[in-house]
Amino acid sequence: MRPPLILLSVLTLTITSFLLFVSCESGDGQEGEEFRDDRISALFEPIPPEAPVPEDNPMTEEKIDLGHMLFFEPRLSRSGIISCNSCHVVGAAGVDHRDVAIGEQGRLGPRNTPTVFNAAFLNSQFLDGRAATLEEQAVGPIQEHVEMDLTAEEAMERLEISGYRPFFEEAFPDEEEPFTFDNVAKAIATFERTLITHGSPFDHYLEGEDVLTEQEIAGFELFKESGCASCHNGPLLGGRSFMPFTHAAEREGADLGRFDVTGREADKYVFRVAPLRNVELTYPYFHDGSAETLEDAVRIMGESQVNLQFTEEEVDQLVAFLKTLTGEFPLVPHPRLPR
Amino acid sequence: MRPPLILLSVLTLTITSFLLFVSCESGDGQEGEEFRDDRISALFEPIPPEAPVPEDNPMTEEKIDLGHMLFFEPRLSRSGIISCNSCHVVGAAGVDHRDVAIGEQGRLGPRNTPTVFNAAFLNSQFLDGRAATLEEQAVGPIQEHVEMDLTAEEAMERLEISGYRPFFEEAFPDEEEPFTFDNVAKAIATFERTLITHGSPFDHYLEGEDVLTEQEIAGFELFKESGCASCHNGPLLGGRSFMPFTHAAEREGADLGRFDVTGREADKYVFRVAPLRNVELTYPYFHDGSAETLEDAVRIMGESQVNLQFTEEEVDQLVAFLKTLTGEFPLVPHPRLPR
Repeated sequence: MRPPLILLSVLTLTITSFLLFVSCESGDGQEGEEFRDDRISALFEPIPPEAPVPEDNPMTEEKIDLGHMLFFEPRLSRSGIISCNSCHVVGAAGVDHRDVAIGEQGRLGPRNTPTVFNAAFLNSQFLDGRAATLEEQAVGPIQEHVEMDLTAEEAMERLEISGYRPFFEEAFPDEEEPFTFDNVAKAIATFERTLITHGSPFDHYLEGEDVLTEQEIAGFELFKESGCASCHNGPLLGGRSFMPFTHAAEREGADLGRFDVTGREADKYVFRVAPLRNVELTYPYFHDGSAETLEDAVRIMGESQVNLQFTEEEVDQLVAFLKTLTGEFPLVPHPRLPR
Repeated sequence: MRPPLILLSVLTLTITSFLLFVSCESGDGQEGEEFRDDRISALFEPIPPEAPVPEDNPMTEEKIDLGHMLFFEPRLSRSGIISCNSCHVVGAAGVDHRDVAIGEQGRLGPRNTPTVFNAAFLNSQFLDGRAATLEEQAVGPIQEHVEMDLTAEEAMERLEISGYRPFFEEAFPDEEEPFTFDNVAKAIATFERTLITHGSPFDHYLEGEDVLTEQEIAGFELFKESGCASCHNGPLLGGRSFMPFTHAAEREGADLGRFDVTGREADKYVFRVAPLRNVELTYPYFHDGSAETLEDAVRIMGESQVNLQFTEEEVDQLVAFLKTLTGEFPLVPHPRLPR
């Protein structure tokens, strides 16, 4: 941690480098032939330079700014002190480090808070995948009784009083009525598409640099050989499929997972495979936060999902590998809220 | 509101200009002869370039950084989601815009949240002045049942788990045991001494620039003539004395104010005179947040404190003047929390 001035310079540099990186790498720079194909299967790739953007919600500076303000806006909760950032803390790897989320009046949510970083690359949002897009996700917590607990109408009324209308007009200049709850969702999702962590040691390794230690490489090999990688793959090492989580089924009062969304018997105790980017920092683990440490999580996943009892050495190797997935976090200013 | 990149440049520029300003103005540049002494009594002065710093808690970059992290650290609350910034929102003029503060489990605090901006210039903290310094103030809310609700021991245990110890060692390099709750207070206070708003139109006016409108000047004249300025004076236009607030005495279930601190009959319904810097943005007003608008607050203060019924024109003039007290807020990055 450096002093504010240096922080800012670092941030400016980070963003500048990121923009340079984008311009150098734009297109399909993440295709296989550039990577160490002797060791890496097509299962892995560095985080793409930019998040995919839906056609009906293009990225603009004005929309990012509005989303940035809304993400930090505590008046979007009944109490007036809980914002998106209260649980998805941008300075804490996008999580709250609690077992399960907590919201208005201390009400407990049903599940552990997933990180907002890199969520833009997921094909489904929430641990049970009940939202397809960031836009759908964004307005869920605002309206949840256990989270921020406002109706859409109440939210818009508060934003009106707080002077947000002109910012919606700037962010959605072609719309006849830009000041809508749908556009709250679009703006927040747009801001969230900027929350990407590039530059992890694993990304550098995939790009051909010899940056991993022997132990980390051994962990990566074990990760592939023992079957972890059959679900935890893709740019986020997870998040692309839904799988039964035996460990969840064994716990009392168990969360039924995706069954709550589909109602299909086969979806009982099924959850979205956790993306593993920055997993070192997103403790505690699992849908109920029941694993405090990465070591515990690795042991439980071994027994529960690939039917293996990892030795202590193997656990250490896997944990060492998982820590190479920690990327560089953009520093996010606290936005100036309208009034 | 501009895009993040521009935000950052502005912030860098703001800080740079501030440092330049400090170096040019350091010493006693705010003495009377430079100001328009034809119109301004010795009662007013621009916000000094820097806050006074106690001898036993000098400002260092490391300490500012640590305080910055602690100010945004939600693990300092029992729930893990309430930080100092939850009520003293740095992007919202340092307040929460609620009638009274709210904390853990939705518990309501007894009073309206005072702004953290420029609090470094106050001789007493809290609306009843029960803390003399920012250091004393900082650790109050962490331990209050209705606010963050931790014991000092619990707070330190959480900070230990979260990896804060090395940051305390850097911030307090000469101490044998730097990892203490007292140093939590010192670090937060140090960060808060950077939260100053310079450059309001009123400051520019005091420095001799013709920046106020006729209406604003008429408001300032009325502010002095009607007696407001006999309490609301000094660099913050208030905050230097305690006065009986008749309006509070008249309200049912009234807050007894400073009586709770001193136990003296004469201190019933006595409150610290509110500092008026940035008052445009720190609504709602009074110890109980009972005045929603500046117009209401001005009318009530007139009747309650100086026994005057201001006409609508006078209210508008006073409000116009009060809005000239809005300064430039530093943009504060969301700090990276240790882990």
